[in-house]
Amino acid sequence: MSQEQPVLIGAKWRVTPDRPTFQGFNPRTTEPLPDIYPVSNWPDIDSAVRAAFETFRSLASYGPERLAAFLEHYASRIESRRAEIVGMAERETAYPAEPRLNSVELPRTTDQLRQAAAAARDRGWTLPTIDVAKNIRSMFRPLGPVCVFGPNNFPLAFNSVSGGDFAAAIAAGCPVIAKANTSHPGTTRLLAEEAFAALKETELPLGMVQLIYRTDHKDGEGLVSHSLLGATAYTGSRSAGLALKAAADRAGKPIYLELSSVNPVVVLPGVIRERMAQVVDEFLGSSLMGAGQFCTNPGLVLLLAGELSQAFIKSVAERFRSAPVGTLLSGGVQKSLADGVKTLQSAGAELVVGGEPGGGQGFCYRNTLLTVSGSRFLTNSEALQTEAFGNASLFVVAENVDELLAVIDKLEGNLTGCIYSHRSGEDDTLYAAVEPRLRPRVGRLINDKMPTGVAVSPAMNHGGPYPATGHPGFTAVGIPASMRRFAMLACYDNVREPRLPPELRDKNPTTMLWRFVSGGWTQADVGH
Amino acid sequence: MSQEQPVLIGAKWRVTPDRPTFQGFNPRTTEPLPDIYPVSNWPDIDSAVRAAFETFRSLASYGPERLAAFLEHYASRIESRRAEIVGMAERETAYPAEPRLNSVELPRTTDQLRQAAAAARDRGWTLPTIDVAKNIRSMFRPLGPVCVFGPNNFPLAFNSVSGGDFAAAIAAGCPVIAKANTSHPGTTRLLAEEAFAALKETELPLGMVQLIYRTDHKDGEGLVSHSLLGATAYTGSRSAGLALKAAADRAGKPIYLELSSVNPVVVLPGVIRERMAQVVDEFLGSSLMGAGQFCTNPGLVLLLAGELSQAFIKSVAERFRSAPVGTLLSGGVQKSLADGVKTLQSAGAELVVGGEPGGGQGFCYRNTLLTVSGSRFLTNSEALQTEAFGNASLFVVAENVDELLAVIDKLEGNLTGCIYSHRSGEDDTLYAAVEPRLRPRVGRLINDKMPTGVAVSPAMNHGGPYPATGHPGFTAVGIPASMRRFAMLACYDNVREPRLPPELRDKNPTTMLWRFVSGGWTQADVGH
Repeated sequence: MSQEQPVLIGAKWRVTPDRPTFQGFNPRTTEPLPDIYPVSNWPDIDSAVRAAFETFRSLASYGPERLAAFLEHYASRIESRRAEIVGMAERETAYPAEPRLNSVELPRTTDQLRQAAAAARDRGWTLPTIDVAKNIRSMFRPLGPVCVFGPNNFPLAFNSVSGGDFAAAIAAGCPVIAKANTSHPGTTRLLAEEAFAALKETELPLGMVQLIYRTDHKDGEGLVSHSLLGATAYTGSRSAGLALKAAADRAGKPIYLELSSVNPVVVLPGVIRERMAQVVDEFLGSSLMGAGQFCTNPGLVLLLAGELSQAFIKSVAERFRSAPVGTLLSGGVQKSLADGVKTLQSAGAELVVGGEPGGGQGFCYRNTLLTVSGSRFLTNSEALQTEAFGNASLFVVAENVDELLAVIDKLEGNLTGCIYSHRSGEDDTLYAAVEPRLRPRVGRLINDKMPTGVAVSPAMNHGGPYPATGHPGFTAVGIPASMRRFAMLACYDNVREPRLPPELRDKNPTTMLWRFVSGGWTQADVGH
Repeated sequence: MSQEQPVLIGAKWRVTPDRPTFQGFNPRTTEPLPDIYPVSNWPDIDSAVRAAFETFRSLASYGPERLAAFLEHYASRIESRRAEIVGMAERETAYPAEPRLNSVELPRTTDQLRQAAAAARDRGWTLPTIDVAKNIRSMFRPLGPVCVFGPNNFPLAFNSVSGGDFAAAIAAGCPVIAKANTSHPGTTRLLAEEAFAALKETELPLGMVQLIYRTDHKDGEGLVSHSLLGATAYTGSRSAGLALKAAADRAGKPIYLELSSVNPVVVLPGVIRERMAQVVDEFLGSSLMGAGQFCTNPGLVLLLAGELSQAFIKSVAERFRSAPVGTLLSGGVQKSLADGVKTLQSAGAELVVGGEPGGGQGFCYRNTLLTVSGSRFLTNSEALQTEAFGNASLFVVAENVDELLAVIDKLEGNLTGCIYSHRSGEDDTLYAAVEPRLRPRVGRLINDKMPTGVAVSPAMNHGGPYPATGHPGFTAVGIPASMRRFAMLACYDNVREPRLPPELRDKNPTTMLWRFVSGGWTQADVGH
């Protein structure tokens, strides 16, 4: 057996003796991987938060250029060690090295780090607002240490120590306490090693990044409600997320959650008539990609009863039956998918294909399609929105438009909602009825495109109403908006000009910074 | 006895029979006022939310110009009925009609309504963000019905049916369910009558405004966690606010709280040497104005030990002794002030002047000054931050700079923090030590000015870290930022151009709207 791997706390890689330990698994073989990782105890967790807080205090003397340099240098270091990182991630997740890990997720990760660096330099995320006449000035400023809980399904791009939350927090000036996802501790460790080396080389305080692998539930709740913590970003299961939310809420600590989402896709009749084969292709690609383990996987499809929809369902069913079955991330994911499908069936959904483990390598579950009538959905809409995370989808067939709208009215908050419609207007009346009901229930409304694929764009919203997230006003993806989750609004009233932060002084600190001055956006200096 | 006053639910003024009732009080006479108001039951509350939700759904066909017209018309109607409204407010609060109610608070109220109208028309609060290359577009959109709990201390400018929260919610396109403050139900009723008339005259749906006066605790918790509610804005006591927060948090409903704040004022030695008399004057004005019943009342003053600070305390004490004692808003406020002073004393604070009821008309309590040493404060910092809402302040005298900084490190989140310093630099070294410690603990940092007086400016932050509020990123005052509390981030991905909301279409809908397009702010149309 390999040696126990250290945690990164207070600028030191260290081992706390006599801790319980765990190991990662290779999902393809279902065998444990050799490395051993600790379950951290409260003194270690508390030390990590204190070290991050002390680092946060010292950061004022550094400034955004240094943060940006670190993020860029770290991105380059990830690229230099890509073979080893991708290899470890492949072993821990069973995702293919090509194209997924090496050519899609790793470039996305380094691109996010570089976008965050550019945003730190630009400073526009702070939304500087200046009332010249009253001499009141305000901006968003970093909130304090941020704890990041990464999900299992993106070992690089949402990793707690390299993903979108990490990049946004660091770029905003917040040290990160990374809580690794226990399904890919090795990948997280390799990334943290590169982050640590990059901190040294860019001469930032080494306490900017702390890493622990696992805690018990009580200590996790203690972490998100720690008095010295600024905020938490959590991506993962609803049950664990809601327990952390309750603890953070009680302590008055902001917590941003990305919990679960079935991502309804409404396929209107006209589009099936127009281009069924294409929509089926797109659905297959989106729903089975990565064995369906995406936050925005299309888990719920809404159709209007009729021959067209029957043909659509039949076609999807055939493709599900013949498509290869992907490997799931863990035994836990396989079990929870099986439980989810069972819950849907108990609530009245009928199995069309799949519905049992097997069909592929290692942890796996057959590609699963279920259907339910709109009227049945309406009688048990909560259970029928159970997320079956993985390669399973539920199709709801509504008898008529009123029933379809009633189904939409019962939808919980979701990250995304799609409407597929006929290109030349056949579905326009239906679209006009559906859109206003779906719009308020989803963070991102999509036309004619499946929900997977979350572009890193300033206009992106990877968020949505509860219970998809904890607050409908924030996004986890999309720089610079995602950075404002880790900020407080800081107002300066009558503060003498030289005492202001550079962003609020009369002179534009970069000459390019956009500021809201006396009612309009400008890059000009403030006149005297 | 006068007849029972109706509530406003579902576009109707109505009386629900057999409800418990209550009456307002005249704080100056401590006698009940004649009008009778109901405690609403759950069916009434539920009806109000449902009516507001149906109204919200219908609003899409109206648009911001209509909301603006309503707000402006309502402001004019308030002005037309000002004598009656001011008279009622004077009876219910004991605030002087002149200048406070008629010449300060009423104009502030109508100014806020008109600023909100302008912001609705301008639409810039929605922060439209357009990624042309990827065709992803996003903006803030109204969240749904907003419940507003108004505080006791601003019967007009923070009234649940006319104040800042009301104006922000309506301008954002959210119907309001107003929960009157029970200490001024009559003022609230008169205002709601004008709002209702203005809705009629501007032909907005009458369900835009609902009014109830009182609920029991359980129903209040049901209201803020109602599945059809968008969000809640609450200003009031910490205990009631935290109970509502817990209920709203459990339901995943945003709740914005303005709870309590002692608003630390650090008076450095140099400024006392330079202009003690002026600082004493400013402190007196701010701390005793309105009998100290301001959210930003300076309740905690931090000083460095020495002759200068002793002289400052002595001077304030003399002024407190001789200043008239104001009337408090209610028997409840008087009792809670007495309890607060007692808590401070039990925690080690020493009484310098005041410390007992009386000295003025009706509900009142003597102007009260307490002191405590920095070392004592550090041993019991939680109790010594008890808010004694009203005309009482605690002065903390730190032995040296380190102790002063340690005291600041123990401060809870506050709305404001002030630093008074010497004009020509004598205190600059101290300022540089104090500011970084105080800054993260307060929403608004002030120089050389007392905290009362919250300007309605886009750069204002009337907010701050918990427990001053529930989230450090939002402000309750300052249009347009305060409107975004009642909004969700709504992204449109690949949505066909004519289906987009006007703010996100290629053509700028007002020609003046600022939008963040492909990395910069612009008022131009989006090029094809």
